[in-house]
Amino acid sequence: MAKQKYVYIFGAQKTEGDATQRNLLGGKGANLAEMSNLGLPVPAGFTISTDVCTYYYNHGEKYPPQLRAQVLAAIRSVEKKMGATFGDPKNPLLLSVRSGARVSMPGMMETVLNLGLNDQIVEGLIALSGDARFAYDVYRRFIQMYGDVVMGLRPEGKEIDPFEALLEKKKHQRGVEIDSDLPAEDLKDLCQQFKTVIRKRLRRPFPEDPEEQLWGAVGAVFGSWQGARAIRYRELERIPHGWGTAVNVQSMVYGNMGDDCATGVAFTRDPSTGKRELYGEFLINAQGEDVVAGIRTPEPVSKLKRKMPKVYAEFEKVCANLERHYKDMQDLEFTIQKGKLWMLQTRSGKRTAAAAVKTAVDMARERLITQKEALLRVSPADLDQLLHPSFDAKAKRDVIGVGLPASPGAASGKVVFNAEEAEAEAAKGERVILVRIETSPEDIGGMHAAQGILTARGGMTSHAAVVARGMGKCCVAGCGSLAIDYGKDLFKANGKTIKRGDWVSIDGSSGEVMLGQVPTQEASFTKEFSELMKWADRERRLKVRTNADSPHDSDVARKFGAEGIGLCRTEHMFFEGDRIDAVREMILSGDEAGRRKALKKLKPMQRRDFEGIFKAMNGLPVTIRLLDPPLHEFLPHEAPQQKEMAQKMGISVQNVRQLIDSLHEFNPMLGHRGCRLGITFPEIYEMQVEAIIEAAINVKKKKIKALPEIMIPLVGTVAELGMLKAMTNRVAAEVQAKKKTKVSYLVGTMIEIPRAALIADQIAQEAEFFSFGTNDLTQLTFGYSRDDAGKFLPIYVEQGILPDDPFQALDQEGTGQLLQMGTERGRKTRKGLKVGICGEHGGDPSSIEFCHGVGFDYVSCSPFRVPIARLAAAQASLKS
Amino acid sequence: MAKQKYVYIFGAQKTEGDATQRNLLGGKGANLAEMSNLGLPVPAGFTISTDVCTYYYNHGEKYPPQLRAQVLAAIRSVEKKMGATFGDPKNPLLLSVRSGARVSMPGMMETVLNLGLNDQIVEGLIALSGDARFAYDVYRRFIQMYGDVVMGLRPEGKEIDPFEALLEKKKHQRGVEIDSDLPAEDLKDLCQQFKTVIRKRLRRPFPEDPEEQLWGAVGAVFGSWQGARAIRYRELERIPHGWGTAVNVQSMVYGNMGDDCATGVAFTRDPSTGKRELYGEFLINAQGEDVVAGIRTPEPVSKLKRKMPKVYAEFEKVCANLERHYKDMQDLEFTIQKGKLWMLQTRSGKRTAAAAVKTAVDMARERLITQKEALLRVSPADLDQLLHPSFDAKAKRDVIGVGLPASPGAASGKVVFNAEEAEAEAAKGERVILVRIETSPEDIGGMHAAQGILTARGGMTSHAAVVARGMGKCCVAGCGSLAIDYGKDLFKANGKTIKRGDWVSIDGSSGEVMLGQVPTQEASFTKEFSELMKWADRERRLKVRTNADSPHDSDVARKFGAEGIGLCRTEHMFFEGDRIDAVREMILSGDEAGRRKALKKLKPMQRRDFEGIFKAMNGLPVTIRLLDPPLHEFLPHEAPQQKEMAQKMGISVQNVRQLIDSLHEFNPMLGHRGCRLGITFPEIYEMQVEAIIEAAINVKKKKIKALPEIMIPLVGTVAELGMLKAMTNRVAAEVQAKKKTKVSYLVGTMIEIPRAALIADQIAQEAEFFSFGTNDLTQLTFGYSRDDAGKFLPIYVEQGILPDDPFQALDQEGTGQLLQMGTERGRKTRKGLKVGICGEHGGDPSSIEFCHGVGFDYVSCSPFRVPIARLAAAQASLKS
Repeated sequence: MAKQKYVYIFGAQKTEGDATQRNLLGGKGANLAEMSNLGLPVPAGFTISTDVCTYYYNHGEKYPPQLRAQVLAAIRSVEKKMGATFGDPKNPLLLSVRSGARVSMPGMMETVLNLGLNDQIVEGLIALSGDARFAYDVYRRFIQMYGDVVMGLRPEGKEIDPFEALLEKKKHQRGVEIDSDLPAEDLKDLCQQFKTVIRKRLRRPFPEDPEEQLWGAVGAVFGSWQGARAIRYRELERIPHGWGTAVNVQSMVYGNMGDDCATGVAFTRDPSTGKRELYGEFLINAQGEDVVAGIRTPEPVSKLKRKMPKVYAEFEKVCANLERHYKDMQDLEFTIQKGKLWMLQTRSGKRTAAAAVKTAVDMARERLITQKEALLRVSPADLDQLLHPSFDAKAKRDVIGVGLPASPGAASGKVVFNAEEAEAEAAKGERVILVRIETSPEDIGGMHAAQGILTARGGMTSHAAVVARGMGKCCVAGCGSLAIDYGKDLFKANGKTIKRGDWVSIDGSSGEVMLGQVPTQEASFTKEFSELMKWADRERRLKVRTNADSPHDSDVARKFGAEGIGLCRTEHMFFEGDRIDAVREMILSGDEAGRRKALKKLKPMQRRDFEGIFKAMNGLPVTIRLLDPPLHEFLPHEAPQQKEMAQKMGISVQNVRQLIDSLHEFNPMLGHRGCRLGITFPEIYEMQVEAIIEAAINVKKKKIKALPEIMIPLVGTVAELGMLKAMTNRVAAEVQAKKKTKVSYLVGTMIEIPRAALIADQIAQEAEFFSFGTNDLTQLTFGYSRDDAGKFLPIYVEQGILPDDPFQALDQEGTGQLLQMGTERGRKTRKGLKVGICGEHGGDPSSIEFCHGVGFDYVSCSPFRVPIARLAAAQASLKS
Repeated sequence: MAKQKYVYIFGAQKTEGDATQRNLLGGKGANLAEMSNLGLPVPAGFTISTDVCTYYYNHGEKYPPQLRAQVLAAIRSVEKKMGATFGDPKNPLLLSVRSGARVSMPGMMETVLNLGLNDQIVEGLIALSGDARFAYDVYRRFIQMYGDVVMGLRPEGKEIDPFEALLEKKKHQRGVEIDSDLPAEDLKDLCQQFKTVIRKRLRRPFPEDPEEQLWGAVGAVFGSWQGARAIRYRELERIPHGWGTAVNVQSMVYGNMGDDCATGVAFTRDPSTGKRELYGEFLINAQGEDVVAGIRTPEPVSKLKRKMPKVYAEFEKVCANLERHYKDMQDLEFTIQKGKLWMLQTRSGKRTAAAAVKTAVDMARERLITQKEALLRVSPADLDQLLHPSFDAKAKRDVIGVGLPASPGAASGKVVFNAEEAEAEAAKGERVILVRIETSPEDIGGMHAAQGILTARGGMTSHAAVVARGMGKCCVAGCGSLAIDYGKDLFKANGKTIKRGDWVSIDGSSGEVMLGQVPTQEASFTKEFSELMKWADRERRLKVRTNADSPHDSDVARKFGAEGIGLCRTEHMFFEGDRIDAVREMILSGDEAGRRKALKKLKPMQRRDFEGIFKAMNGLPVTIRLLDPPLHEFLPHEAPQQKEMAQKMGISVQNVRQLIDSLHEFNPMLGHRGCRLGITFPEIYEMQVEAIIEAAINVKKKKIKALPEIMIPLVGTVAELGMLKAMTNRVAAEVQAKKKTKVSYLVGTMIEIPRAALIADQIAQEAEFFSFGTNDLTQLTFGYSRDDAGKFLPIYVEQGILPDDPFQALDQEGTGQLLQMGTERGRKTRKGLKVGICGEHGGDPSSIEFCHGVGFDYVSCSPFRVPIARLAAAQASLKS
């Protein structure tokens, strides 16, 4: 075997690794090396590479023969740098031993601190520090940690931790409350008691030899890689078991050796606003865990300037240095030992969406990064936070249930249980939350009137979720723990009963349902946000359109930067006001003549809607999908509404029920809908085409340029599209001839049935554009009903059977094949065929990246996701 | 333009075409040429090729310039052969002008007979025939036909045909009933009246010039190719409009010139039994239309032997000659004019399935054809007739409705409206027909007990249809005109009311529903059938398995030649007897422990079933699909059954309803079923695997070799299959260890979700076999629910949007791609992966041919389709 390097030293003067060697040295090791390379004050140490871990498990838990010599040499080097010697009672070097995998696995693996002490060496530490209490406390902690982590002394049965028990007993004897009130003598005694319990319980002594201690600790870290907890964590996070962990052995430094010592954490910029100033906190004479424990209140890091001006100045320089080097806001850990600053950790700092936008734009302006890099710094999904109101972060939340975060935002209001009431209360100026078991198209008016929508059933693409996102309205869906009783006008959750009129608050970003009125703060668009969007628009190749069904939504979306409408669902227009009566009259008609009569009433209303939408989208394309849902969706589901319909139509309730029965479908998703309606009842589509072309002609007179793209839904065979395209062209020609005005339009189709993707070469003979309807395509490719999948999909995601809910993030492996195949085959027939996506995935960043890769022309998403899509499209462009 | 040949003569001495030129000369023209080539007595004539039709329509309805000369030359040649001259009053040649496309389009295009007569020439005909009545009758018919077909004299408004009106008037004047009782004088007068009405109505005279008559008739035939009727027919039959028709001009011969004349039709073998003897009928002194009209009763052709022994001997020789030449049973038309035999038509004779089998096998034995050719002579689908009872062909049928021919056979019985009653009546020895709006798994017992099943809703793959085919039981499904009223125990159809206990008969091969008890005849397997099957087995590469869920069905299928079970649906076993109670107890259990307790009761019953099936299939593979349907399918749908369940389970009816509600799914087809159940409730699949392995071990002790292939349904991701395969192997190992016996088994999956086909390379990492479940795969690839598609699918097939119902004949273009892709990708990962099909398509001949082409190892179909599949597989092999 070739002689291999397994150990990499870091620290002042000499460092062997750097930040690029994350795979070999782990994240922590690579960053420590990088900081050392930058000349920053890092306590010296060395990293045992992940190769050793791999070797260890491939060779029956044995180390490579070269390792021992390499480790000993590394210790010699550390001793030299730190001016102390491992195992030397006069001037002892103490070490920490920590895990460090490629990616952070917080709390999953073992750590041993203060290693290198024994009864003799502790005396040296006393001499050096001049503080016996400090020294024995360190020694006590070491024995306890080593006994637990390395030697495996764990409580038995219901027993509490035996070390803690001895500590408690001692405090009780002394009548003190906290550890630090115990004097040195007691701590010394505890050290002996700890050793005794180890010997008695484990039948072997605590090792006094520092080198033996070190190998024990290294073995414990490698061993913890295959611990049950770590394995489970890797399975959940899908981290390969083969990666292994590195081990970092580093000199100890102490922030608790007196008032010239301190420890703290800091961010180089404010992680919640992005403001350019050091942000963080510290404690004088304390250890890292004291900052976390919260017994003493830490001070803001700015105060360190007054208390330790020289150290603070150095710290500021280090921060600037690190930010310049990493070109990103840093999250730092530091310790000051007897007036000397030591850097223990640096990593990119987590931040709010607002901070992410501001730091990215600021850094680009500061020329720290380029505009392109700035664009890649902001997670598109996080922008959602900026586009909707949110709850005051400091407000108390009395959470009574958690559902799916179906549409972001924050809303408070009085509970109502049906759409009519929601509208009535809203008309009186009340703020209401509409609470339903599930919603249906009949509820649209009430959803619009409510502040937010809460449902007990349904997933991320349920009716409530899709419509709410379209409206930009807060929605928590599928909160299964809600027991709603419409009869009694109440729901129960978490043992509480909430009645009609009670206040609740819902958080559409977390899915939380809360009692009472939680204060909210409005969304605000900063200058930086606008700037970033401008940069994004310069980079992206994909156009971004919106899914909008009304002039109002179209206006909103255009303000958010939409470049057209990718999906206008005409059926949503069928529910508004009295229109539903005409729709029902049509459905009730036994013959074509009756249907035509009812459709005649609908046409002017549809035309008016289209005129409004064309106006809002003047000069931009508007894709209009002809009627899609099965007719039974337009009939009332509940008895009172059925009675009302019977009265309005002048027929018996029994007639209404018979009609509903005759239209009943076992699997409506796979039923008589989409172009299947267009073929069996051509008069419906004819009316819609007339309304579209008439509207385009009417607005043309007002100098508004309409670019309708007429979309035939649910096409599975080229004959369907051929017949309906011929119908469209015939009707359009008739209208244009009658009005003596020409308008241009396209006729295309949704690709939402697997077969359409498979025969896209044929479909493209007729289609002038493709729009992938990935909601239905996902349903059919997987055989999942999005309304029913709640019974197993969460379990599938949890168990890792699926990486994500495929209704949220496009299943690139399966469904994605159909997108790619459909696009390639379609363009083989029709060069330059316009291709887009109008499913929910059009607003999902990873899916947008996929669409970019496959060569789509545009994505379309709900109005409030347009900015997200613009950024995601820019990132896709930059990454490719 | 090069000089092109447009006209092909035929007849004695010289013939220019032959049977291979069907595209150019049409079917009729090619066969007339072929008979002439064989030296058979064919009235001379010529064919104007289909090229002329194409030219005619491509050049604004003009003929190619060379045509006139070629036609005149052809007439000269015919005159020479027939010894008569066209337009010669002394010895006139009369002609027929008939259409003739590549494929027969019966009744869609025009014909003109007796062409070449005028007032002068008719006198010549009288002189030649010595029969004025005959001559004027021919002349009268010619004017009438020409006036209608060529000149376009049609009745106006509500008027009856003007020629017929004159004829009726004349008969009335003379007081006679039938045309032939009118004397020559009257017929002569009618000829003049006919001409007068033509001149008056059309303002142009009837053409007296024979050549003008000829061109008029040729133009009418070409014109009729683009007639509305013909266009619609071609659209329905998908015949390209560009093919065009040929025109056949042929000398007239007459079977009605005296008692030495005759006309007739004959088959070279009996078309209903296949027996080798001349079969047909003739009339002395008659024309072809008299045989059809039915005024005189024709005599069996054998009698011709006595009446015209010399002609008969010649005819026998001609028949033998034609059969030898065409190597198939022929359907002939002939005319005897003054003792001379003329052959007018020959074509392959249509025949019953029994005759097809017998003639094919006989001809192979006679060495007329090879065994391979014999196999290709029988349509596999027609075998269905031989495998089931059928109605006596001569029995009267009082048809009150027509549904889908869902499962072949013939059945009569008393009407009952629910499964319990069917069982009770059958137990008393009554024959019943179970009439339901639709059936569900609860009805299995009743379906089994009934003679046949009739439903008002559902398609060819509805529950009723699938289960009935599996049982080999007659079923008519989706008879929408039935108005069933369960409450009143009756149904209405075609204005009649049929009550419980009334007799009805249903024809599962035609879909007819009839009043009363129509006599049936049993299925019988002939020696020839067995022989043909033996030959088929030698030729085919595909194995044929069966879909069977019980030992009984397995036995039946094995007798039909099944080589294993391709699909055993375990859930069907869950409905029998008390098992359903245990199943419901399991569903009701709120926790795993409760479910396990209930499953423990089910296991011995499942095991017993498996033992029976393994016994029936000793030594052959048995593919067992683990539980597939959603759990709510096992709960009762109707109030009385819900009440019964509540009592049995000791809970309230409300509890039962709540349970049903909680399991309700919007789209059960896409819901919580298949392996999704296996993952969320692993104990169900564990029980089934235990039962399978225990059964295999138990029968092994009896020297029975079980080869279970455990099939995981509805897999869409490799993780699902991986988890459930691991579970299966673990449980199987436990059972084998406990019983200290080894058995072999495979674990594979159904490919029935589009995604599974797309990622088949991954799935094959786990799957040891693939079985394409094309029912669900078709549903998902098209987005059609087979339970709901009845509202548009028939219209789609009628309008030619789809060539066939894709649930009957595999959609090769779309779904077929997934079969091919899945097979190729699966075998790329796992070389030699066993691949089969277990959807309904496994019994459909065109689908079987596709499966052969894609390289499947086997097809699986319902027991009664096994012989069909064996023959279809052999044909696929022979064709490829």
